[in-house]
Amino acid sequence: MAAAIALAGRTRGLTAPNPNVGCIIVRDGRVIGRGWTQPGGRPHAEAAAIADAGGDIAGSTVYATLEPCAHVSERGPACSDLLAVARPERVVIGAGDPDPRTNGQGAERLRAAGIAVTEGVEAAACRASMAGFLTRLATGRPQVTLKMGLSIDGGLAMDDGRSRWITGPAARAHAHVERARHELILVGRGTLAADAPKLDVRVAGLEARSPRPVLLSAHAEGLPEGWLHIASPNDIASLPGDHLMVEGGAGAAAAFLSADLIDRLAVYRAPILIGAARTLGDIGLTDLLQAHGRWQMVDMRALGGDRLEIYERRRS
Amino acid sequence: MAAAIALAGRTRGLTAPNPNVGCIIVRDGRVIGRGWTQPGGRPHAEAAAIADAGGDIAGSTVYATLEPCAHVSERGPACSDLLAVARPERVVIGAGDPDPRTNGQGAERLRAAGIAVTEGVEAAACRASMAGFLTRLATGRPQVTLKMGLSIDGGLAMDDGRSRWITGPAARAHAHVERARHELILVGRGTLAADAPKLDVRVAGLEARSPRPVLLSAHAEGLPEGWLHIASPNDIASLPGDHLMVEGGAGAAAAFLSADLIDRLAVYRAPILIGAARTLGDIGLTDLLQAHGRWQMVDMRALGGDRLEIYERRRS
Ligand SMILES: NC(=O)c1ccc[n+]([C@@H]2O[C@H](COP(=O)([O-])OP(=O)(O)OC[C@H]3O[C@@H](n4cnc5c(N)ncnc54)[C@H](OP(=O)(O)O)[C@@H]3O)[C@@H](O)[C@H]2O)c1
Ligand SMILES: NC(=O)c1ccc[n+]([C@@H]2O[C@H](COP(=O)([O-])OP(=O)(O)OC[C@H]3O[C@@H](n4cnc5c(N)ncnc54)[C@H](OP(=O)(O)O)[C@@H]3O)[C@@H](O)[C@H]2O)c1
Repeated sequence: MAAAIALAGRTRGLTAPNPNVGCIIVRDGRVIGRGWTQPGGRPHAEAAAIADAGGDIAGSTVYATLEPCAHVSERGPACSDLLAVARPERVVIGAGDPDPRTNGQGAERLRAAGIAVTEGVEAAACRASMAGFLTRLATGRPQVTLKMGLSIDGGLAMDDGRSRWITGPAARAHAHVERARHELILVGRGTLAADAPKLDVRVAGLEARSPRPVLLSAHAEGLPEGWLHIASPNDIASLPGDHLMVEGGAGAAAAFLSADLIDRLAVYRAPILIGAARTLGDIGLTDLLQAHGRWQMVDMRALGGDRLEIYERRRS
Repeated sequence: MAAAIALAGRTRGLTAPNPNVGCIIVRDGRVIGRGWTQPGGRPHAEAAAIADAGGDIAGSTVYATLEPCAHVSERGPACSDLLAVARPERVVIGAGDPDPRTNGQGAERLRAAGIAVTEGVEAAACRASMAGFLTRLATGRPQVTLKMGLSIDGGLAMDDGRSRWITGPAARAHAHVERARHELILVGRGTLAADAPKLDVRVAGLEARSPRPVLLSAHAEGLPEGWLHIASPNDIASLPGDHLMVEGGAGAAAAFLSADLIDRLAVYRAPILIGAARTLGDIGLTDLLQAHGRWQMVDMRALGGDRLEIYERRRS
């Protein structure tokens, strides 16, 4: 299932409105087929994996990060029907598909065809690998990641605004790869005016994966060509794509945090102290108690001399 | 040597002006003696370990975190002379003793007595275990640790000063144990006035290890009984003890950082965002480039939902 999740990551940010799914087919201890949702959302991962196996998967075990779909569309048959015909011995499923057109019916159709089904394997990791799709399905808006480059003492910049550089080259390169995993990247008007940032992916081989820039501002004047515009964080539901990265500055970050629209924090932390620094600013907190229980660190890694801390918003 | 270092930690903060040393004696694969510098600085670790072994250590291997001393004092004989008489087969030394009265002469005296000597084993870890002693020897002042309880975004408190609580019970308990490893604990007048803090060690069994409180203020008025006073961070050389913890607040912390008198940062980091927060304030930085290359993370651990990050000042 870990291998299937890795395959699913290949088209993260390219499959909306479909989920990015991964699929691996194993027979006699050998991988005979690998597939992932293709850009634009079709073919689905299972169809791609069956094709990769040359069509014959009888007696195999199929691992899929998401329950195979049960709905026929103009763009192709339902994956559960495809599998019922192809007759693997077993289908191992990660996450259930909450889409009402599937939602258990995919697994049921496989069982009805006499195929063994195991559900919920590494379900949390599978859900995390398609958090954008699941967020859109549950809330109607993209998953939102707030990126911040911070000092030990929480500075985004010196108090006169200078912020070159807080983090080092390894962290900056990583941040560019992260951009490629998002369809949308947002800055506030302050950052547009101060930095005229390009917001593209400057990593060899990933240039074509640059996200669509979005401006947050009360008005759309001076919107650069090709950019989108929203007048409030609450308007993100209208944006195309399931993954939005909020790149800054402090005003935009605070506006999204105040609206409780950040799902994930990516903090690139440099081992420096700034002292008199620009920090986040008001996020609507009236009591320290409110601040607790919201964020959970889910990952951390070294990037050169810096560290990346990933926190997720706990919602229950 | 790791076991000897652990023994050395038992009297950290209690042996000044002597170093806290650990010693283990092994014969035929068995530990026959364990010793550490006793409170007040005497007996030395080697003498304590020889006594623990019942006096007979012929043919053994002695592990000592610091080079055995070469100087006779009124309070006891030189450890290198003791060992020369006790005739272990080998002495394994961690750090060399920079004290001019020893500084290589201890090891030389052992070799002259026909005892094999290995030097520099786990030297960095040994030096770290007696950083207070080494800092005093090199600079004439105690080693200084700055403790801060911080949010993800670097807040020390909300902007109206409320700071209860940023970190949780596990972090607060750990901070009390850290206090016990210091002879001295300092706050600025602002913290004394606002919180009248007790600054003692409220951990069962460690009450007697409470450090001596020190006030940082331009004047000594209203100094609580039993407290010491300094009028400037630069006056710390006069304080008794080799380990000083700067407990806060922001003004005192910034004053010590501006004077470049912090050797070690202990950041208790809570997984919360505050937004509009009190932060460190001016530490004399005029350029972001200056901020880099000063701090290195040397340890990190989870404490309940919080994390402790330890940074050391790089000096070269
Ligand atoms: N260290 C880092 O990670 C990092 C990253 C990016 C930028 N920066 C720095 O941050 C600085 C800019 O920060 P900033 O805070 O001045 O500007 P900003 O956050 O980029 O933009 C602030 C603007 O965003 C708009 N905005 C904010 N909240 C809004 C809301 N609720 N609804 C509609 N519009 C809203 C407003 O534009 P209107 O006034 O037009 O309505 C506001 O003036 C730059 O110096 C940049 O270099 C640092
Ligand atoms: N989150 C945490 O980790 C933490 C820890 C401790 C305290 N706090 C909070 O911090 C707040 C107090 O912070 P604060 O910044 O107002 O006060 P502070 O740092 O405790 O004290 C400031 C005072 O220290 C003295 N001082 C500073 N620099 C000096 C220098 N170079 N030479 C001589 N004296 C110097 C001055 O006293 P004089 O004016 O008398 O000369 C100055 O007014 C309290 O609300 C407390 O609750 C938070």
